[in-house]
Amino acid sequence: MSVVYRNIPRPDRAVTDGFTAHGVATIHEAQGRTGLLAPYMRPIYPGAKISGTAVTVLLHPGDNWMLHVVAEQIKPGDIVVAALSAPNTDGFFGDLLATSVKARGARGLIIDGGCRDITELKAMDFPVWSRAISAKGTIKATLGSVNIPVVCAGMIVNPGDAIVADDDGVVVVNAADAQKVADAAAARESFEGEKRAKLAAGVLGLDMYKFREPLEKLGLKYID
Amino acid sequence: MSVVYRNIPRPDRAVTDGFTAHGVATIHEAQGRTGLLAPYMRPIYPGAKISGTAVTVLLHPGDNWMLHVVAEQIKPGDIVVAALSAPNTDGFFGDLLATSVKARGARGLIIDGGCRDITELKAMDFPVWSRAISAKGTIKATLGSVNIPVVCAGMIVNPGDAIVADDDGVVVVNAADAQKVADAAAARESFEGEKRAKLAAGVLGLDMYKFREPLEKLGLKYID
Amino acid sequence: MSVVYRNIPRPDRAVTDGFTAHGVATIHEAQGRTGLLAPYMRPIYPGAKISGTAVTVLLHPGDNWMLHVVAEQIKPGDIVVAALSAPNTDGFFGDLLATSVKARGARGLIIDGGCRDITELKAMDFPVWSRAISAKGTIKATLGSVNIPVVCAGMIVNPGDAIVADDDGVVVVNAADAQKVADAAAARESFEGEKRAKLAAGVLGLDMYKFREPLEKLGLKYID
Amino acid sequence: MSVVYRNIPRPDRAVTDGFTAHGVATIHEAQGRTGLLAPYMRPIYPGAKISGTAVTVLLHPGDNWMLHVVAEQIKPGDIVVAALSAPNTDGFFGDLLATSVKARGARGLIIDGGCRDITELKAMDFPVWSRAISAKGTIKATLGSVNIPVVCAGMIVNPGDAIVADDDGVVVVNAADAQKVADAAAARESFEGEKRAKLAAGVLGLDMYKFREPLEKLGLKYID
Amino acid sequence: MSVVYRNIPRPDRAVTDGFTAHGVATIHEAQGRTGLLAPYMRPIYPGAKISGTAVTVLLHPGDNWMLHVVAEQIKPGDIVVAALSAPNTDGFFGDLLATSVKARGARGLIIDGGCRDITELKAMDFPVWSRAISAKGTIKATLGSVNIPVVCAGMIVNPGDAIVADDDGVVVVNAADAQKVADAAAARESFEGEKRAKLAAGVLGLDMYKFREPLEKLGLKYID
Amino acid sequence: MSVVYRNIPRPDRAVTDGFTAHGVATIHEAQGRTGLLAPYMRPIYPGAKISGTAVTVLLHPGDNWMLHVVAEQIKPGDIVVAALSAPNTDGFFGDLLATSVKARGARGLIIDGGCRDITELKAMDFPVWSRAISAKGTIKATLGSVNIPVVCAGMIVNPGDAIVADDDGVVVVNAADAQKVADAAAARESFEGEKRAKLAAGVLGLDMYKFREPLEKLGLKYID
Repeated sequence: MSVVYRNIPRPDRAVTDGFTAHGVATIHEAQGRTGLLAPYMRPIYPGAKISGTAVTVLLHPGDNWMLHVVAEQIKPGDIVVAALSAPNTDGFFGDLLATSVKARGARGLIIDGGCRDITELKAMDFPVWSRAISAKGTIKATLGSVNIPVVCAGMIVNPGDAIVADDDGVVVVNAADAQKVADAAAARESFEGEKRAKLAAGVLGLDMYKFREPLEKLGLKYID
Repeated sequence: MSVVYRNIPRPDRAVTDGFTAHGVATIHEAQGRTGLLAPYMRPIYPGAKISGTAVTVLLHPGDNWMLHVVAEQIKPGDIVVAALSAPNTDGFFGDLLATSVKARGARGLIIDGGCRDITELKAMDFPVWSRAISAKGTIKATLGSVNIPVVCAGMIVNPGDAIVADDDGVVVVNAADAQKVADAAAARESFEGEKRAKLAAGVLGLDMYKFREPLEKLGLKYID
Repeated sequence: MSVVYRNIPRPDRAVTDGFTAHGVATIHEAQGRTGLLAPYMRPIYPGAKISGTAVTVLLHPGDNWMLHVVAEQIKPGDIVVAALSAPNTDGFFGDLLATSVKARGARGLIIDGGCRDITELKAMDFPVWSRAISAKGTIKATLGSVNIPVVCAGMIVNPGDAIVADDDGVVVVNAADAQKVADAAAARESFEGEKRAKLAAGVLGLDMYKFREPLEKLGLKYID
Repeated sequence: MSVVYRNIPRPDRAVTDGFTAHGVATIHEAQGRTGLLAPYMRPIYPGAKISGTAVTVLLHPGDNWMLHVVAEQIKPGDIVVAALSAPNTDGFFGDLLATSVKARGARGLIIDGGCRDITELKAMDFPVWSRAISAKGTIKATLGSVNIPVVCAGMIVNPGDAIVADDDGVVVVNAADAQKVADAAAARESFEGEKRAKLAAGVLGLDMYKFREPLEKLGLKYID
Repeated sequence: MSVVYRNIPRPDRAVTDGFTAHGVATIHEAQGRTGLLAPYMRPIYPGAKISGTAVTVLLHPGDNWMLHVVAEQIKPGDIVVAALSAPNTDGFFGDLLATSVKARGARGLIIDGGCRDITELKAMDFPVWSRAISAKGTIKATLGSVNIPVVCAGMIVNPGDAIVADDDGVVVVNAADAQKVADAAAARESFEGEKRAKLAAGVLGLDMYKFREPLEKLGLKYID
Repeated sequence: MSVVYRNIPRPDRAVTDGFTAHGVATIHEAQGRTGLLAPYMRPIYPGAKISGTAVTVLLHPGDNWMLHVVAEQIKPGDIVVAALSAPNTDGFFGDLLATSVKARGARGLIIDGGCRDITELKAMDFPVWSRAISAKGTIKATLGSVNIPVVCAGMIVNPGDAIVADDDGVVVVNAADAQKVADAAAARESFEGEKRAKLAAGVLGLDMYKFREPLEKLGLKYID
């Protein structure tokens, strides 16, 4: 039952690399407000912003053995997505593992568990989005799987899906939709500059988006 | 049932502006240890410190439409206080809305829900205290109300109440009590400098506050 | 029932001072993956790193009186460990108390409750690890005890135990085991430099730790 | 600051007594989906169903003194609504207090804190909806207030408001709206029998409510 | 993006019907300790025990419209599995909907949200496993999908998968594995009677399972 | 580091057996409002009431091996108290283990983790107080210890301490204090009958406990 898939399809890197500039909120909107991991997934330090391709690993509570197994499957530009078979906040990942996966080309880690060596990881500039920060050590005793579909923080992540992560959280984009989502995000942002300028000049969203009429129709009353 | 009150009383701005210097903990103490919003309300970035007058809005889970409605009711020096009709952590507020309410003169947002575009809001220097950080998008479909009394993070906030927010949290002061609380806060702080100096010199609180006798009376025993 | 023990054994300061350099994760591993306080204990600002000797205090919800009592028992190099008789997130500790305990020689506070005056504490460089940040004021009405064994964030802490705290959390080391743990931590770290260099060079943990054989024995399958 | 209001307006008992038959879900709907206390408020035993008039009390964490004060203000048909000035799960209420308030005519207790003596309360048939079950004892040291507006489990409750509680939770109805809500609830239920019969006969809600057209318009696609 | 799949494969009903007798814990073990939904999924009343085939529906917070859509797709012996696009505890399901889906042949509901009309549902003998009990009403405004793969309480559920639910929780079995899991469960239980008899007679698990040797090897010490 | 203490002191059974009649709330009060385990510890079915002597076991997350080891150390009248080295809600205990420990004379289990086979345990009349109900299976791979002091649900429990558990929760009494606590509980209850009678007759606690004067002194105001 424990398997490692060695060859996974990866979407066009040029497309997914472009996601970083858009950011998590825009990508999430651009694909119809789906794909966002639960908001308990927070960066271990502020300011990081990455996108890349998911290599996935399923871990068991308190056991980080399979992180060494997934390390071998990383290609430059990948992001490791670690799911757990049951909720657990132990510190599965620290600076030694970060050194290893970074050397393999990983851009960051998304883990539905705990992370440790925060100070060192920040110094290394290796970003992690995790459910918890915890120094609790783990063992190496139980098999899991690598590059199978997993549920990470409430969302299905398939190996090869695109991942975008920044201070707003983490979003997953199905590999097949990557180009379409990139286009939608670009379209969305092309209008934002003009909108921002208007709003900054004091134009109200009520007027800019023509909300007054529908609000009135639904019965909104103004009282002086 | 959905109403927007356009004219709300606002306490003397000079009084409420003075609250910033005192900070949340002092104001909370000065009004008898009341008015503090639940401690899950955290700033989206550290270091901001504001005070001002509440304009209130009641939102429904997953719907941020009324934030555009409240924008029109903002006067310079106001702080938007957004309550929810049921617990929800979606990202109701981001950089476009921030651009709009900032242009109207708002000093910040207090929201018992989620906030997104953290990086951009920090760059804009527009502070938000929220229950969560989440990129989850919202829709514009349901009416709420503006400038009615709301329950935000466990506390009643009336339109026109004073709000103080800093790294310690958020406190609300009834408009009618603003001057009294300002006086009490000033009185409280006038003694703090002297106390701080004594404590820094090694004087014990036990002696400075004369705690030894009441502690002994209640039965505290020392064992060598 | 409320007692203050004035004389507590303290382990050799030279030994416990050395713990700071190793950090929480290493010390926790070095003593057999025990002693870690619950991961909800977080620093009120990032970057602090301390070790020292525990003076303990048992507080009751909403009452910080005994923090003034414990202040008198502090010796330079101590760390105050405050436990609660029931879960509570009030703001038991702020800048005045910090001024007092710092003047007595305390290096920091570990509190299974709330802390306030965050901005001031950071400016003073007095680190606190707490369950919450809250401006909620407390009263001075109920006796607790000082320098008794307490349960803080799920872990037993005896007066005189060594405490290590950094961005990864907080760990307690039994006084009697301090030297042994120090030796184990040093041994552990002596190997880490070499490991880190190998991993940085791209050597896989699978090979460095010889994991391939045991993984295969347990049935791990690779699929191309 | 601590006051006991002795005379509170109470709505027509005949009206509020009728709420029991409708139940919490119907009353909540009948007043426009408002007034529901947070779902963490659960009955201490299943099957109880009450309605009545709120007498309110504000307690402080770990202190149940004011429950004796509110007892005197109870009139037959009242329900005690106890709010807390900060979150706390101690066991504020047990069989002795229940004996007292029951003798005064109270129909039940709604408390945003803990309750104990569960077995005895069930035997006495005195229902309680609480945030927690806890044997943790409380003290009698701090003043609160009686019959002031309170925030209980996220909802504002004014003295004299109507309360309805059953296995689904707890809802509050503003005294002034009681008759209107009673009428709306009755109207709502008058249609339910017919609907229930149709649905039981296999008619789909899609057809009964004419949902097919709006669903199609919004773009719902069927795939075989 | 909102679709209803009308034809879904269903595993052999005779096989999945047999799961009820084994119960959730045994089925979960028999398929290698996988498939268990998060333990926050609790029955709304004790004692129910069902198995059947999943028809799935994805709902949005506060909107139960799609439950009417999924009703049409139910075949006798199905269990409705309702997932949410974001965490929410509103009362999506009550006695009218229960009447409808029961008339269509549904055996129960698994919902990662709230449920209401508990008393009525128990009287109807229609079991529900939910994340919460809440009377909070929902609206009918947003499209979701029916019979797509969903993540419910942390687990992927595909339409047509087998579901087993009892007082221990809820487990999902991939349709393709149903027969294999049934066989493994039967094998597992065939040994349990004998084991139970031995243990009831006072034989220790230490001896029956031959644990003494491996425990000793790992270093377990006995001290008198 | 993993040890099993075979001989533990047990307090006089006659004394601890008497605790059942008093119940958890009274025993907790009788020993000065200490010893109560966290209120998240709930009985898996209502109505059970036990007292006895603690045999303790420290488990690791997801591993129930040591429950077989502790089984051998049980004497008739004991209650197994299982602590965890890190928070975890897996189902460590089910009907087979219950059969074994019951055969050894255990009266119940207190476990700071999950429990399964709820229906069977109720049928067997073997009560469990747990942090969660979960069918999640566990493995048998890691050593823990038996009859060492543990922290269970926030409270220190030493082997041989007295345990009382009922629908209100779980309380621990230090073995050395058992007689003293029994006396205090008896004294406490001897007054309760009279008090209950008075309160049932409508006498107010305000008068019975003479609270009016101290309340007035502290400043409580009555307003008509």
